[in-house]
Amino acid sequence: MKNLDCINALINCFTKLPGVGYKTAERYAYRIIEADKNWVDSFALALRDVKEKVKLCAICGNFAEIEKCGICERRIQNGVICVVKDPKDVIVIEKSGAFSGTYHVLHGVISPLEKKGPNDINLKSLITRVREENIKEVIIATNPDVEGEATANYIASLIKPSGIRVTRLAQGLALGTNLEYADEVTLGAAISNRVII
Amino acid sequence: MKNLDCINALINCFTKLPGVGYKTAERYAYRIIEADKNWVDSFALALRDVKEKVKLCAICGNFAEIEKCGICERRIQNGVICVVKDPKDVIVIEKSGAFSGTYHVLHGVISPLEKKGPNDINLKSLITRVREENIKEVIIATNPDVEGEATANYIASLIKPSGIRVTRLAQGLALGTNLEYADEVTLGAAISNRVII
Repeated sequence: MKNLDCINALINCFTKLPGVGYKTAERYAYRIIEADKNWVDSFALALRDVKEKVKLCAICGNFAEIEKCGICERRIQNGVICVVKDPKDVIVIEKSGAFSGTYHVLHGVISPLEKKGPNDINLKSLITRVREENIKEVIIATNPDVEGEATANYIASLIKPSGIRVTRLAQGLALGTNLEYADEVTLGAAISNRVII
Repeated sequence: MKNLDCINALINCFTKLPGVGYKTAERYAYRIIEADKNWVDSFALALRDVKEKVKLCAICGNFAEIEKCGICERRIQNGVICVVKDPKDVIVIEKSGAFSGTYHVLHGVISPLEKKGPNDINLKSLITRVREENIKEVIIATNPDVEGEATANYIASLIKPSGIRVTRLAQGLALGTNLEYADEVTLGAAISNRVII
């Protein structure tokens, strides 16, 4: 005897979530069976809602429910754009409270392995913005990994000729960590990026 | 800036699945946003479907789409009932191919810590079945932990007086394991349950 067809269909849906294998999906499905009907209904509704309502901001590419996202709608452009890989990076940087400009979301990075070139990410509109919005500085906040670095360098090579300042997030020791446990690459970066006190 | 309301609602739903924290729920929600619309629709449908279609078998308490589950419907009662904690245990035992009787699903075990007594699990109908179905043996296949053992002993104390054989799954070394890595409790059980060869 196997699971009922409708249970299998649900397990199958759950396995498509990131990092969810068959056993985990089965646990999720059993929780749904035991759960309150109202909650399951609101879960199904939330799934459909997100798919219907979430659009991309026409300016920066961030998630938005209307044509413009909350940041492009409310914040005054101060001449600084922060370029990030994903919409969730916007939320992380906003939480830090250290940035007050607008964003540009690439929805990915250049990755030859995944066959993603410059045309497969939201890059063209960034170049247009830089040209039209009187931008003074572009901060590139992609991840400090191989693909993030390569993407940052590529974007810099496009923008720098027009004389605009292009910066990258500082790389060094994370605050509160112990020197002893820092990996050698990070430590190397921290030494070569040392600052005068 | 925070996530959009509809994204938050979905994240909130995902956090109610077992073992899912906020960060994981956020990852799931972002996958849904990026996913194919048809898949999300079928996901929402599968959720509602499971909730509407899955019932409990009137005889054994296993999941069923009609009044009786597939096993109670098709299998001839051979006088042996296997008592398990959850519907998924039925599937696991069926996969082993070592049992050909019918099941009885308790939907939980007796657990004073969770304030679950004998009346909070599907026990009454088991006693009725034992009395009416001409049962020769009841195999109790609850988990070999404190609560599973306590529940097994309680059920045995109810059934044994009527002269029916009550058995418990054997406890010992798992097949393919190394003696060196067996925990002492399991090893102790394996020694006291040793069999003549």
